[in-house]
Amino acid sequence: MITRMSHLFLRTLRDDPADAEVPSHKLLVRAGYVRRVAPGVYSWLPLGLRVLRQIERVVREEMNSFGAQEIALPALLPREPYEATNRWTEYGDALFRLEDRKGADYLLGPTHEELFALTVKGEYNSYKDFPVTLYQIQTKYRDEERPRAGILRGREFVMKDSYSFDLTDDGLAQSYRAHRDAYERIFRRLDVEYVIVSATSGAMGGSASEEFLAVSEVGEDTYVRSTESGYAANVEAVTTVVPEAVPVDGLPEAVVHDTPDTPTIATLVEWANGADLGRTVTAADTLKNVVGKVRAPGGEWELLAIGLPGDREVDAKRLEASLEPAEFALLDEADFAANPFLVKGYIGPKGLQANGVRYLVDPRVVEGTAWITGADAHGKHVVDLVAGRDFVPDGVIEAAEVREGDPSPDGAGTLVAARGIEIGHVFQLGRKYTDAFEVDVLGENGKPVRPTMGSYGVGVSRLVAVVAEQQHDDKGLRWPAEIAPADVHLVIANKDEAARAGAEALAADLDAAGIEVLLDDRKASPGVKFKDAELIGVPTIVVVGRGWADGVVEVRDRFSGEAREVPAGDAVGEIVGAVRGGRAQSAS
Amino acid sequence: MITRMSHLFLRTLRDDPADAEVPSHKLLVRAGYVRRVAPGVYSWLPLGLRVLRQIERVVREEMNSFGAQEIALPALLPREPYEATNRWTEYGDALFRLEDRKGADYLLGPTHEELFALTVKGEYNSYKDFPVTLYQIQTKYRDEERPRAGILRGREFVMKDSYSFDLTDDGLAQSYRAHRDAYERIFRRLDVEYVIVSATSGAMGGSASEEFLAVSEVGEDTYVRSTESGYAANVEAVTTVVPEAVPVDGLPEAVVHDTPDTPTIATLVEWANGADLGRTVTAADTLKNVVGKVRAPGGEWELLAIGLPGDREVDAKRLEASLEPAEFALLDEADFAANPFLVKGYIGPKGLQANGVRYLVDPRVVEGTAWITGADAHGKHVVDLVAGRDFVPDGVIEAAEVREGDPSPDGAGTLVAARGIEIGHVFQLGRKYTDAFEVDVLGENGKPVRPTMGSYGVGVSRLVAVVAEQQHDDKGLRWPAEIAPADVHLVIANKDEAARAGAEALAADLDAAGIEVLLDDRKASPGVKFKDAELIGVPTIVVVGRGWADGVVEVRDRFSGEAREVPAGDAVGEIVGAVRGGRAQSAS
Repeated sequence: MITRMSHLFLRTLRDDPADAEVPSHKLLVRAGYVRRVAPGVYSWLPLGLRVLRQIERVVREEMNSFGAQEIALPALLPREPYEATNRWTEYGDALFRLEDRKGADYLLGPTHEELFALTVKGEYNSYKDFPVTLYQIQTKYRDEERPRAGILRGREFVMKDSYSFDLTDDGLAQSYRAHRDAYERIFRRLDVEYVIVSATSGAMGGSASEEFLAVSEVGEDTYVRSTESGYAANVEAVTTVVPEAVPVDGLPEAVVHDTPDTPTIATLVEWANGADLGRTVTAADTLKNVVGKVRAPGGEWELLAIGLPGDREVDAKRLEASLEPAEFALLDEADFAANPFLVKGYIGPKGLQANGVRYLVDPRVVEGTAWITGADAHGKHVVDLVAGRDFVPDGVIEAAEVREGDPSPDGAGTLVAARGIEIGHVFQLGRKYTDAFEVDVLGENGKPVRPTMGSYGVGVSRLVAVVAEQQHDDKGLRWPAEIAPADVHLVIANKDEAARAGAEALAADLDAAGIEVLLDDRKASPGVKFKDAELIGVPTIVVVGRGWADGVVEVRDRFSGEAREVPAGDAVGEIVGAVRGGRAQSAS
Repeated sequence: MITRMSHLFLRTLRDDPADAEVPSHKLLVRAGYVRRVAPGVYSWLPLGLRVLRQIERVVREEMNSFGAQEIALPALLPREPYEATNRWTEYGDALFRLEDRKGADYLLGPTHEELFALTVKGEYNSYKDFPVTLYQIQTKYRDEERPRAGILRGREFVMKDSYSFDLTDDGLAQSYRAHRDAYERIFRRLDVEYVIVSATSGAMGGSASEEFLAVSEVGEDTYVRSTESGYAANVEAVTTVVPEAVPVDGLPEAVVHDTPDTPTIATLVEWANGADLGRTVTAADTLKNVVGKVRAPGGEWELLAIGLPGDREVDAKRLEASLEPAEFALLDEADFAANPFLVKGYIGPKGLQANGVRYLVDPRVVEGTAWITGADAHGKHVVDLVAGRDFVPDGVIEAAEVREGDPSPDGAGTLVAARGIEIGHVFQLGRKYTDAFEVDVLGENGKPVRPTMGSYGVGVSRLVAVVAEQQHDDKGLRWPAEIAPADVHLVIANKDEAARAGAEALAADLDAAGIEVLLDDRKASPGVKFKDAELIGVPTIVVVGRGWADGVVEVRDRFSGEAREVPAGDAVGEIVGAVRGGRAQSAS
């Protein structure tokens, strides 16, 4: 197809939009790919829609390649199924809710686990029907608190979501693997630089969960990776490297000291180094005890104390992930008043446990480690309180912050922080939803069997921004051949009639060879046209310019910037070769 | 591609769904094409989604063929633009409204005139940019009071909507024509039997509007067509054939008669035929005067009287269409009390006009016609009251019912009633929306010029039901080749291993030849497979059955029911020929 810029619904902008901060947002607006309609709600103009559709095509091909079947569920959904799984409430403000003319409650689907479980329940009733994987590429809705960066985090967006249904855990593992492999193929075809991070520590049992993060400074997701191995994980999923336990025999006795005015770790360390303990003390030698309260769903608030090395803070996200589905809150003054044994600044394990407070510790607090910690009285701390001898914690918890330089959990190298954009998620859901809707089918042995589910997502519209973000340069966008809005951007930069006719003939020949041509046939200066070509980012730019008189056209590679002159007679063959080469590279 | 039914997410049903009344709904559910999620909200299962996508493809190809450009606007839209055109209110209960987490008002787009006008305003600013036609194929939302017949009238549905922007009325007429022609091509490719009906009488000036109605008994739209010509129109758009005026010279004088107990047309006719008037009187000789009240937008209620032949009722829809945008209401007792000259059952033109009531008549009430009508006094009527002599109406109005047997407005034949399903609409909107948003561009003469718009729609998802409705037979669905979910339904109806292997090889050969194959490789009886094949409705059914031993396969035409035996060796060539023939027929 030949798309004429003289006719194309496109206006490029010289200036960055006022509301744009990240490069992909600026460039996608400037190049006329998307336009803002409301916060987090965008229109796709012709070039943007083409890239979006190309990405959809790649995703569809890779999903179909392993037998996933495409269906399309509505976006407008009744409340009842989401009520049954409690997500009507749990989603909070992120769910768009509405009523129909009869007052019935509806929502705009943010993700479709409920409906897919019900759909499978509606159609299938025998073990012979399984496994099955269904997917859709659909417009989804989430009322994000802070929509940002254009289509990077929108409130209306396109997602591929899929759901696998297996009868066994092994089957689920295979479906999970098939998705994971397909996602790798998709992101490679899109030339996306990504990492796969563990999304949970695995503490929840067999429910594996991994996220695909596109590496990007503008990403909202932080993760850590090893300096030496391929290890990468969400901060929530990092497991602490546990030191070896130390024999308690022969360790010094615990001694309580007067430590006036030492309510903080810093003041305590200062005291310790002035107290002639026979060693240099750092914050890592102190045991900080953080007390809060925790409530299981439907339960009562209970006190919970966490002991961790004094050089580390509690990371709220890691704490939440560890306690889920229970809720955590800090204590207020009323709580302190009701529990006078909590002596602020001087709380210690003994007082906590003596008063029945559940006491969990950081994995570093292994048996035989000696600590300086609170002695449960104002102005008093205890030195050499030994874990496993002087106190036995009620358990361990991953709640301490992860820091650059921490050892990598896989034993290779240390951790460094990085930022990424979530582009995919694979999750072994288990039977949460099939339980909720009692999805049972006849098993091979004649007894009912309940399928186990996986849930998998790819942020299709977000990928447009991600590719723009990773591939752009200071002149504009650069699209990998697989998803470019056209194969060739053919610029007519010569007013001569013969040159113009030659360019038209070249465009027609390329079209006949199956090449998508964006033809700049506008009455504009060559300078304007070159700038637009660089901004728009089609991977191969062909210029019919001054060289036409000498029988040559120029072929530019938008990525390398390399330009070469090609005899007009060879142009079709050369360009077809360049385009196919680019496509093959994307696909490899 | 080969789709294996052993793997396909499909369960066909033997029984009609309880909530289905029309054949297309029953069959699309039974054949596993769609599933209900909520009233008017459906899921598309694999086969249904394929047909939907095929129709989208046809629509897209025909839109692109005349230079329309595809974009994609959001479905979630802010209130403000719809407030500016008053449609936020005018849409009434049919609009899905919702609030975001910050309390801002949003709606789910039922149609996008506002946003397209704003989109063009945002990008274009010179006459050089015009004309331009933009379209989208998008999920739309209308909270129908009575969603019905499955996907025939849904609340979430797929539409192609497009909008043309021209600087002149001639340009608009051309854009309108281009759409109208494209729609004809689309519906022909889909083998849809349709009529184009005038949607307005043209009384509103240049704003032409036509509807494409698929001919169907289950349609909700009634229209009339000529028994002899191609004339077809919405009932609202029918113009009455006006009789010739009669010279008033020599007509008998008007005489008032005592007509006790004749408050209805029937009693009046009975009186007249007993009164020795020298002729036989029918209801058509009486002049019925209907009084109501009318209110222009923002105005006060005023009385309005309509005079029409006594054998006809006022058609509320025709009356409304004629008065639009003014509103019409019947009188209540208070109105009669306030206007004592309105003597129920005996109202006549003279009393009405003497009291300043605007008096409009049916077009048949031409000069020189003599009527029996009310004499404005209880128990009195006047005979031989002549229009143009004894009273002069304030104008004419198309408000009387249209009846079968009425002369066709184009002079050829008479009208008969028919039912149809709206599948397309073309409408010369004019400047309503460009006025609302002050869309002005620089004109050729340096002065601002305001574009004029056309608005055009095709009910894409509805067409799936329309084709099912028009093409089905008592065995199931039948899809035209252009939009079928597969080209060939290949049934393995022979348990023999060699036959099975032969069928697999045939499927592979067809696939290699670019034929979409639905392969019934299930372990089911031939009877079950044949029934499913007929229900699913792929146009060509190939059976590898008992004949395999004799080296033949059976090729059935789902439309004609014709079956013929083809030597296995010739099968690929024969089937490819049959499929291409079917496709060519659809496209012709």
